[in-house]
Parts: sequence; C-alpha cells; structure tokens
Amino acid sequence: MKRTKIIDALQCTEYGKDINVKGWVRSHRNSKAVDFIALNDGSTINNIQIVVDPTSMDADTLKSITTGACISVVGTLVQSQGAGQTVEIQSKEIEIYGLCPSDYPMQKKGQSFEYMRKYAHLRLRTNTFGAVFRIRHNMAIAVHKYFHDHGFYYFHTPIITASDAEGAGEMFQVTTLDLSRTGKDDTVPYEKDFFGKKTNLTVSGQLEGELGATALGAIYTFGPTFRAENSNTPRHLAEFWMIEPEVAFLEQDELMDLEEDFIKYCVQWALDNCKDDLEFLNKMIDKTLLETLESVVKERFVRLTYTEGIHILEEAVKQGHQFEFPITGWGMDLSSEHERYLVEEYFKRPVIMTDYPSEIKAFYMKKNADGRTMQGTDVLFPRIGEIIGGSVREESYDKLVAEIKARGMEKDSYSWYLDTRKYGSCPHAGFGLGFERLILFVTGMQNIRDVIPFPRTPKTAEF
Amino acid sequence: MKRTKIIDALQCTEYGKDINVKGWVRSHRNSKAVDFIALNDGSTINNIQIVVDPTSMDADTLKSITTGACISVVGTLVQSQGAGQTVEIQSKEIEIYGLCPSDYPMQKKGQSFEYMRKYAHLRLRTNTFGAVFRIRHNMAIAVHKYFHDHGFYYFHTPIITASDAEGAGEMFQVTTLDLSRTGKDDTVPYEKDFFGKKTNLTVSGQLEGELGATALGAIYTFGPTFRAENSNTPRHLAEFWMIEPEVAFLEQDELMDLEEDFIKYCVQWALDNCKDDLEFLNKMIDKTLLETLESVVKERFVRLTYTEGIHILEEAVKQGHQFEFPITGWGMDLSSEHERYLVEEYFKRPVIMTDYPSEIKAFYMKKNADGRTMQGTDVLFPRIGEIIGGSVREESYDKLVAEIKARGMEKDSYSWYLDTRKYGSCPHAGFGLGFERLILFVTGMQNIRDVIPFPRTPKTAEF
Repeated sequence: MKRTKIIDALQCTEYGKDINVKGWVRSHRNSKAVDFIALNDGSTINNIQIVVDPTSMDADTLKSITTGACISVVGTLVQSQGAGQTVEIQSKEIEIYGLCPSDYPMQKKGQSFEYMRKYAHLRLRTNTFGAVFRIRHNMAIAVHKYFHDHGFYYFHTPIITASDAEGAGEMFQVTTLDLSRTGKDDTVPYEKDFFGKKTNLTVSGQLEGELGATALGAIYTFGPTFRAENSNTPRHLAEFWMIEPEVAFLEQDELMDLEEDFIKYCVQWALDNCKDDLEFLNKMIDKTLLETLESVVKERFVRLTYTEGIHILEEAVKQGHQFEFPITGWGMDLSSEHERYLVEEYFKRPVIMTDYPSEIKAFYMKKNADGRTMQGTDVLFPRIGEIIGGSVREESYDKLVAEIKARGMEKDSYSWYLDTRKYGSCPHAGFGLGFERLILFVTGMQNIRDVIPFPRTPKTAEF
Repeated sequence: MKRTKIIDALQCTEYGKDINVKGWVRSHRNSKAVDFIALNDGSTINNIQIVVDPTSMDADTLKSITTGACISVVGTLVQSQGAGQTVEIQSKEIEIYGLCPSDYPMQKKGQSFEYMRKYAHLRLRTNTFGAVFRIRHNMAIAVHKYFHDHGFYYFHTPIITASDAEGAGEMFQVTTLDLSRTGKDDTVPYEKDFFGKKTNLTVSGQLEGELGATALGAIYTFGPTFRAENSNTPRHLAEFWMIEPEVAFLEQDELMDLEEDFIKYCVQWALDNCKDDLEFLNKMIDKTLLETLESVVKERFVRLTYTEGIHILEEAVKQGHQFEFPITGWGMDLSSEHERYLVEEYFKRPVIMTDYPSEIKAFYMKKNADGRTMQGTDVLFPRIGEIIGGSVREESYDKLVAEIKARGMEKDSYSWYLDTRKYGSCPHAGFGLGFERLILFVTGMQNIRDVIPFPRTPKTAEF
C-alpha cells in the first residue's frame, strides 16, 4: 500500500478507506479500552491520531511505542469524535521502524531553546522547529519565485574569494596549507597554497553580483556569507544566507519600489502558504505575530531621509525619550534601537531610510549632488531594525576611483570591478537582505540561532 | 518613459508606439543613409535592431557608440524589413550611459573559451555565456519548483563544519588564526581559532541532510560544496554546487523513480523555457544538443545492476572493444569511459546502475541481503557519465556502527549522525546531483569552468 503523507491524510474525507501513514510518535497515551498515538511525519505541524485497540497487539510491543519512535500504520480513516481534529485512523497493523530509548533528549515538552540548541539535530523533530524550518523553506521559495517572475537571473557568486569585497567585516581564511608547518620564519608560503594566494570566505556577493547585472540586466544572489566577528549576540551568525539582487538601469525610486514589493511578497507568501505553522507560532512564541505580518503587507512603507530621521530622533530626546545609545546628531550611525523607535513608536510602520551620509556607507554607493549624502535605501522593520540595505551604485569610473583612493583602498584589487565602469558603464542599483533576519521577522523567533538549522557562532561548529 | 526590456520589445506588435530600450551595443554598422545598432540587455539572447538616421545626431557622437557601449534609446517600434527579426526601433534620441574603449577584451567575435575565462567578468556579456547563465538560472528554478511541488523542504546544511562527511575528498581548512604565527613549535593553537577546533568547508551536505529528512520527512539541499583536489581537468571544480535530496520512508525502486522523474523534469523545463538559448547553443556549440535533450526526456532509463553492467563490459572487451582503463572484473570502480560505453553505445539511453559492491561505496549505504552489494542507484548520462549518485541509507544502528568500525572510522565523530538511528530510526534514501554536471549536459558546453560564473580551480580564485 502506498504511503499517504499526514498533511494529505488530514485533508482526506474518504472515510472507511484503508490508508498507510508513517512517522514519529509525538505522544502515546492510553485509557482502559483504547490507546491514542499522535503521529507526525514532518509534512505538517498537525499530528494524526492513531486509535489502537490494545487487545489487537502484544501489550509489551504496544507499550514500547514511546515518544520519538518511528512507526508505519495501516488502518481505516474515520471521522474523529475528539475535538481539534476531523479525521483519525483506526489502526489495523503497526510496524515498528525504530524504537526510541528513554534518554531521547527531545522527550519532554517545554524545554528551553538554549537546551535544544545543543541538540540541533533532534530539535528539528519538535513542533516549533518544524514550523520554523517549513517557513524558512517557504521563504526561500518565495524569494526564487519573486525574482524569477520578475525576470531576474539567479547568479552564483563565488564563496571562496581573494577579494575582501568592501572590507565589510572580519574574514575567515581558506587554506590547504598545514598550519603546524607555516609561520616557521614568520612567513606563509602562499605560493604553495591551493589557490597560490591568500583566500577568504566571501563577506558579500555584491561586487560580483554587479558583474552579473551589468551583463544579464538583473540578477540576484542567494547563498551563504561569512563574518568572523566575535559577536555572541542573538543577532549574529558567523555563517548566514544573503539575498543580493542587483539591477541595471534602476534608479533610487524604483529601487525602493522593488524593496517594498519584494518584502511584502515574501510576507504575503508566508501568510498564504504557512497558515498552520504561523498560527502555532502566534500562539506559542509571539501573540502579535500574525497581526504584525498582516500590518506590514497592508501599510505603505514610509520613505524618510536620514536627515529627517535624525531630526525626529532629536525631537524625541527633547520630549524626554531616553535612548541607550545617545543621539549625537547628523553623521552618526543609527543603532537598531533608533531604527526601531522610528518604526515601532513614531511611524508605526516600516520605514525606508534614504540619503545617508556617504562617510558611514560603502565606497560604491552613489553620492547625491550635495556631495555629502548618498542614494541609499535601507528598509527598517519592526522588531528587526535594518532588514534590507540598499543603494544606487556609483557608475562613474572617475568618481569611483577617487572614492577608492580617498578611503585608502587598493585600486588594483578592484580592477575587475572597475572594468564594469570602464567598458559600457550603466546606472544600476541593488540591495542585500539577510535571510535569517527575514525568518526572524516572519516566525517571531527571538534568537537568530533558532532560525538556521545548524548555527555557526564563536566556539560552535557542531554537526 | 518607462524602459521596456528587449525580450518584451521583441514580442511587441504595437507598431508606431514610442518605446525606450536600454542595453549594450553588440555591433554598430553603417551604410550611406542609415546606421544599424544591435542592442542587447541580457534579458534574451536576441538583440533588437536600432535604426539611426545619421543626420539626426552629431557624427562623432554616433561614431563613438562602439561594441560594448551602454546606451538608452527612445524610438518608434516598427516592423522590420530585414531578415531574422520582426521588429526594430527607429531611433529618435540616444543617451550614452557609458562608452567602451577599444581595448574592450570582448570586442572581437570568436575568441576562445580559454581566453574568455581570463575575463570571466566580461564574458558574461557574450552570447554564449549569456545563454549558459540564463539556462543555469532556469535549472536552479526547476530544481526548487520540482522539490517544492513534491513536498520537499529546502534545508540549509552548514558550509563550515568540523565533520569530514564521509572522508569523501580533500578538504579546505577554515581558520581565523594568523598563519604566520602558527606552527612555531609544530603545533596549532586551535583553542584560539574562531570555532575552538579545526574546521573545514563541507564536501557534502548529505549527513546533515539526513538529520533534516528524519524530522521533516523530505528535504533537499542546494548549496556550494568544496573539494581541495589538485585536479586540473574539464570536469573538476574546487567549488561547485550540489543538490542533495533526502527522503524518509523511501525504498530503492521509489528512489529510482524520483531520480528519473526529477532529472527529466529539469531537462523538460529547459526545453520549455530556454528555447532561444538552446537553439543558439545547438547551432554554435553542439549540433546534437536539442536531439540529446529531447531523447533523454522521452526514453525510459535502463535499470541495470552493477553485476550486469560488468558482464556487458566484459563481453564488449571480448568483442574487441578497447577501453583506455581495463575491465578488471567484479569489484572494480567504473570510470566515466565505461559508464559512457553503456549509455552511449550499448543502451543508447540513460542508465540507472544499482547494487554496486559495498566496498567501493560510502559507509552509510544500505547493504543488500547478500552482504556484498548495496542499494545504490547512480544515474549515468550520455556525455557526462555519472550525473547522480544515490542510495538507500543503512537505518540499523548496529549495522552502521559495525561498518564505521570496519572502515577504521572514528565512531565518536558521528555520534550526532548515529542519533538518527538511535532515536526513532526510519528507512530513508537520497541522492546527490552535481549542479554543474547538469548544466554541462543541458548546455552542451565541454568545460565545467564555463558553466559557473567564476570558477575556482588550482591556482585560480580571481574575482
């Protein structure tokens, strides 16, 4: 008999039909006359109830089917008498695939997320993490579908690179040298290394993404990105996934339209495709989750210059609002606290902040005519702060070279990047979205380590 | 005026309408009365012809618009008089975004792929590489769509790992240690390294994928994978993308059905969605390309045991067929040459080879009752040889531990992996597909370095 997935069995109304379901036991309880087994196969957060006549099988065998065990059940699909479920299965035959010893780390309910992180390979079998990773999947699908439908090409930028992108962050080195043999005379024989030079893990695919956009017109990256920052916070990972679209012939207003449309599409996709999982998380993790998601897709994002933003923050301080990090005036970098004040308290909806001071932003961002602000377009979100960082790119070869020199960067390292401005340069723009920040937002989870299957953080690279 | 993408302009039949197109000049030729500019914006392999009245603009400016330059054109869409195109644009106004100096490396036609590899950032602007990377995009979309539609969850397995997977290949080390300071006393202070231990780039996401499948039911990975093998061949990359689905409750026959259905879906997707690009490659790269692709989706794949395969190869030798690598009989590992003989000459269609000797395959593959073969399911393809490597996984804790010990592997390193067999073990199966091998097959390209934007190979990590 062909197996039926539990997500399909729960929708089935062919009562009286025999079906086969397979999965892991979430709970097993017995009354006098009957045993109830809640079975889950990962296809949905909902369990199917297996009703077992205890006289139909060996008592010890039945008793051995504990939480975490894996079984195959053949039985009759019937309408359920119990509350909270429409169908159940009257068991005819149970095959045990794998029992589950009593030291199963996920046996108890209500264990802390911190505890479960130690068992990242088994937490996947819990309701919360099942929900989170089904939603993560759906968000990835939404990303690909959105860009594909809009004529963008998925573009694989390199993971190992000899470029340091923008000097954006601390990098991991990649090597095949034997570390117990380097440094003998304080030097490193890079000529013997695999690539013949020092190489690192990418901190951003953007510069290479621009190479794609200035040829294929519109591309997006979606791949792992690395920062070797020694930050033990609920917001930092050493390995995370980034989405970086880059588009030729796009101007600042159109870039903002793209950002807003894209992120609303993703959130709407979750609302349309992850209903059961979101309802569970809304109940268990964050009671305002659904309301927040629905409000984000409905509201038009505020478009606010950095200068206006600073003004609002300064006014807030005058009115007595206390920030942990002081508002030091124009030119300061905003912290997440400041961004969230604007979004959550002042405007009560997402904000696209534009035209930051050039000095606090990357070298490739296009300056405005005033010479001191640039055409940035960062999206600030409730709970998250900056969820997207975007800008128009400087397309003038001369201006870009001047900026590289002014910042003391090595022009020669960027020769391939500068070629896009040397040969048929075009106006273009793009943005970066940290995928895990989107997942944090959409799931209501608090710690970024709980929205990636196997988090990499300082001193942690398990599994 | 809103820009029209060239792919849309070429479909447009609103003759007489003014439109705006933007792109890069592929060629500029002039006759006495009129200039013709072929413009491409990456949205399609086809150019749109811009017809310019040379008296309408400054002669030097017009002359400066050479191959590679980037321009914006406003003009009237008209039916084309020329052969090979249905519409063209009568230019009214041309804005130059970026000129292109005469040292533009992609200026000449017919340059070798080897030459173009040096300019991987600019080869993207050529017809061939535009076609290849639009097809690569489409294959990625097909992968995601197939698995999403079939209830698989996209699962991000870690890139940095302290596990060596299966000892599958040479690994790159990842470190934040200063290599000029390690090795002073022949030791490496791993306690000071970012993760507090030795870590590498993943050689396969499969083992972690199994953690996902034994919780979520069916997952797939699609991410970068690394091998530090010093192989300078047209088939090897140090950094490549792998797709690794893993499915709970799947048996060997069903696994073969999945492999065949999946790969046919991808090839059919290319035929349905990449027509213009495939026709170009069929004309310029491989005149049998379309025929081969169409035959693969039509033919039922042969299902052949390794033992039968060896028999056929031995018979071929008896009949006088000469192989570069000798057929040494049962127990030997097949080379690509042998696989291609079976596929291209003997059966003339794809082959799924099953039940290999356990000894030549990985430790986690499930053995048959005979104790010497395993439930493998590799797919062999014309031109490529092995395109998919798959198997049922051993689900018995005791058998898996015995195999790990028999192979002299460290049981403790696999404790998290063994937990899937310890707690609620389930039958499951999966496969791995090297994405670039699929792209080689679908594009007809010969060298794997030409189907990934920025190839990483020994001594090469440019861009």
